[in-house]
Amino acid sequence: MSQQKLSIRLNCPLPKLDFDVITLGHGSGGVLTHRLLDTGVFNVLKNDLLNEQHDGAVLNFNGPVAFTTDSYVITPIFFPGGNIGELAVNGSVNDLAMCGAIPQYLSLSFILEEGLRMDEFWEVLLGIKKASEEAGVPIVTGDTKVVDKGKGDKVFINTTGLGRLHPKANIHANRVKPGDKILVSGPVAQHGVAILSVRQGLEFETTITSDTKPLHQPVLKLLDALGEDVKFLRDPTRGGVATVLNELATQSGHGVEIIQKEIPISEQVEGACEMLGLDPLYVANEGIFLAIVSESKAAPALHILRNFDPLASIIGEVTHDHPRQVLQHSRIGGRRIVSMLPGEQLPRIC
Amino acid sequence: MSQQKLSIRLNCPLPKLDFDVITLGHGSGGVLTHRLLDTGVFNVLKNDLLNEQHDGAVLNFNGPVAFTTDSYVITPIFFPGGNIGELAVNGSVNDLAMCGAIPQYLSLSFILEEGLRMDEFWEVLLGIKKASEEAGVPIVTGDTKVVDKGKGDKVFINTTGLGRLHPKANIHANRVKPGDKILVSGPVAQHGVAILSVRQGLEFETTITSDTKPLHQPVLKLLDALGEDVKFLRDPTRGGVATVLNELATQSGHGVEIIQKEIPISEQVEGACEMLGLDPLYVANEGIFLAIVSESKAAPALHILRNFDPLASIIGEVTHDHPRQVLQHSRIGGRRIVSMLPGEQLPRIC
Repeated sequence: MSQQKLSIRLNCPLPKLDFDVITLGHGSGGVLTHRLLDTGVFNVLKNDLLNEQHDGAVLNFNGPVAFTTDSYVITPIFFPGGNIGELAVNGSVNDLAMCGAIPQYLSLSFILEEGLRMDEFWEVLLGIKKASEEAGVPIVTGDTKVVDKGKGDKVFINTTGLGRLHPKANIHANRVKPGDKILVSGPVAQHGVAILSVRQGLEFETTITSDTKPLHQPVLKLLDALGEDVKFLRDPTRGGVATVLNELATQSGHGVEIIQKEIPISEQVEGACEMLGLDPLYVANEGIFLAIVSESKAAPALHILRNFDPLASIIGEVTHDHPRQVLQHSRIGGRRIVSMLPGEQLPRIC
Repeated sequence: MSQQKLSIRLNCPLPKLDFDVITLGHGSGGVLTHRLLDTGVFNVLKNDLLNEQHDGAVLNFNGPVAFTTDSYVITPIFFPGGNIGELAVNGSVNDLAMCGAIPQYLSLSFILEEGLRMDEFWEVLLGIKKASEEAGVPIVTGDTKVVDKGKGDKVFINTTGLGRLHPKANIHANRVKPGDKILVSGPVAQHGVAILSVRQGLEFETTITSDTKPLHQPVLKLLDALGEDVKFLRDPTRGGVATVLNELATQSGHGVEIIQKEIPISEQVEGACEMLGLDPLYVANEGIFLAIVSESKAAPALHILRNFDPLASIIGEVTHDHPRQVLQHSRIGGRRIVSMLPGEQLPRIC
């Protein structure tokens, strides 16, 4: 695609990048690396801390700080609802939120494959900028490496996040007790189905899009209002809701029961799961989270979550019975054990 | 290699990992990921913070904190003097030190290629453990992804580091002034030549080994003794000494002059560079750093550095003349401009 066409499509002036594709020289640390950073990365993501261009950023903290890291290897790098850049920002913002922290800073590290088209790199970079601005979390330090063609896959991204703990946060699996309620903040399985649809070239009446988005606002509202009654938070990405609930059961030592008909899922995603032979409980999500709250605060918690997504729901509870196991009551009245994802369902989903 | 032989070679009992190679399932987030982490990673790297097994670690800080990230894509992953695991720990420890910080915590993120031999993964993990213990910097949070065979190259690692700023540190290129002296903490070009020798199957009388090691001890001694008279610190990794000095000249707006005969280099490395047609000023290092200090404090700075390496040396100074350029006085009396690395010398050197 010509620079001009791309500029129009992205609705953004492009930098003069001299090259059409990424070369090994862009990872040399020398002139080409500097040119890529100065005209591309620094220019797009600019802020006072990043502009120091030192080996690292210097930040100020006073008190407990959450620290989380994730590498993103999703394929394809562009998908309905986002790209790997947005995913990499939102993913680490959300991991901070799940620690009960207010996301503040991100680092950004690229592993680029030689031959990556510069317009694709540019589009990913703009995805990062957009997500970083929407979440209000600046990129303050970074790194760029290039690997030879055939030794990577276009773009891998690592983001590592820092955020100060919410003063009322006390998020630990071992604080979860029988009777606590399990809430989900929105409909399940959207991200995984969106990715699989692109990979398999499936078409639906309307496109199923990834739910990638930052989740810290609803989390912070929950913590503001309910404090220590919010006991556990987790975004069910790889492995889906089933895996998070199994981790919770194992770590807390209690049982978990969920009610299938209370689990929100869009009709279209449910239909796609049936067609693809997927259990939506195992499908990856990027824009919802599970919250375990005291029984007495389940109603106000649901009220808060529904301000952000009307499909938020109380899907089950923590039990004395069947410790370390997750049980689902099905729509037709049966009960079954929901185990942890045994093998691999959808590789490279995030 | 059998588990038993490997156990003997690494002088360490191996965990029961069930598999001989990494599979896509190890990146699923489900049962296999948990098994790999519980029996492998967590068990090897265990510490109180990592053991929380949440989406992130919660740390305490009070004051300015340095934050730095790097991805490591070196090939081969095993080389004389170390492996990618040690490099990934030492590299980020050193980037923190170059900010004038006391390294405290690291995150660790793997991108593994499907089919990676489990014994190789295990050896890398032990390299990480060893380097983390030697530097006294624990791994407190992490992530593991797996990409399909042919879409990665055995192991890529991201480490992101946090450290509290040394109370006397004030490291900025814009504090550098004409007259300041340039010191190097040890002999140059060792890492790059070690890697290139393995790649090209070259043999020397004795093996040239990478200089990968943590550098925070000499840096902290310099800061303890000389405080603000230490103006700039940088480890010359990719792009070598020439690139760092060019960055310094550009960022400070001053000139830089270095004296070739003062630049320490081992006879063997110098011979190898000649044979390979490499200018040692551009070759990557992993275990040395450049320090710019006030003229009046150059002698005590050198004294401190020589306690760690007798080959530490004052190699030049910052000048009013030829601003933004680096000049080298050669052994035979000539002068030449040393520019930034224009293309790529040794891809995937770190």
